Amino acid sequence: MINYPNGKKASAKISKKTSASGRGMRLEEDINQTNTYYLNLGKAVLHKKPTPIQVVNVDYQKRSAARISEAYYRTPSTTDYNGVYKGKAIDFEAKETQSKTSFPLSSIHEHQFQHLEAVLAQGAIAFVLVRFTYYEETYYLEASQLLALAKNSKRSIPYSWFQEQAVLIPYSLTPPVDYLKAVDAQLLKEKQK
Amino acid sequence: MINYPNGKKASAKISKKTSASGRGMRLEEDINQTNTYYLNLGKAVLHKKPTPIQVVNVDYQKRSAARISEAYYRTPSTTDYNGVYKGKAIDFEAKETQSKTSFPLSSIHEHQFQHLEAVLAQGAIAFVLVRFTYYEETYYLEASQLLALAKNSKRSIPYSWFQEQAVLIPYSLTPPVDYLKAVDAQLLKEKQK
Repeated sequence: MINYPNGKKASAKISKKTSASGRGMRLEEDINQTNTYYLNLGKAVLHKKPTPIQVVNVDYQKRSAARISEAYYRTPSTTDYNGVYKGKAIDFEAKETQSKTSFPLSSIHEHQFQHLEAVLAQGAIAFVLVRFTYYEETYYLEASQLLALAKNSKRSIPYSWFQEQAVLIPYSLTPPVDYLKAVDAQLLKEKQK
Repeated sequence: MINYPNGKKASAKISKKTSASGRGMRLEEDINQTNTYYLNLGKAVLHKKPTPIQVVNVDYQKRSAARISEAYYRTPSTTDYNGVYKGKAIDFEAKETQSKTSFPLSSIHEHQFQHLEAVLAQGAIAFVLVRFTYYEETYYLEASQLLALAKNSKRSIPYSWFQEQAVLIPYSLTPPVDYLKAVDAQLLKEKQK
């Protein structure tokens, strides 16, 4: 496993970002498991993109394995996940918040908003999976909803808004985050337009 | 810019992999330029995925920029490029060969074959851009053609086969590799089926 920026905390023996129930920061892991489940069943091909890393120095002493000796994490210019489902391009981001009251839009980078806008314009199914770790709830937020809220210069989306307007993804064991059901609902809705 | 595995050679001042004309190893750069051109025109959203890197050690002295002090390149488990065009999921790999006579299938990893098979099954438009650096020619090879040849346990695809069966992408300046024309032709062909 790669140590993603989130994972750094774990490997450095700092585990502040764990929710009351001990399930904090696990959204990425849950989505990866879900994607493997979909892949094995032949339901969809969805992957997390590798974390972008700027390599500065590489040692070539051993020919078999070039050792990167200096590198830095870069800010992603797209969303973290994409792939294909029923011929449609799927593109999404996943975010966790520890807040009990709202999801801060600052956790999505400006170029990620632009990316979501661009893929929507190309007809992709785009969304954000937002997990409120305190409630252990994961919501499916359509990218079009997110962009509309961001354009009204909202700084955050209240938890109550999610309860009323977004789709709650029921937690299950296999797969942990069965978000394709919400994708199906969105595909159906778009067909009926 | 990230130093990709190809780029390593350049930064280490080794430039053996340059074709007679000096245009070797430039396919990735040409595709990135082409993708930026498509993105700016609103034609398609296609990106190269970051190179997968396994991070082993990170220094946290400076809070502002965590410095990765030990990491290794990993073998990609999917293709390098994907995105969305006209609502369709696009997925492709790019390969250069210096051979004058054939394209060796060993340059495509086993899990990349599996990945191409999986995305085809989901209805994605999948292909490989193959550049014969000696001839400065880039061909559009449908993934279904590639998989059929691989299943007949071919070890390589003759250059003459490309001339007869694959689509030659004319070289231009803007964009350098206008592969969406070949995608359009494939979409049209699939519509007529």
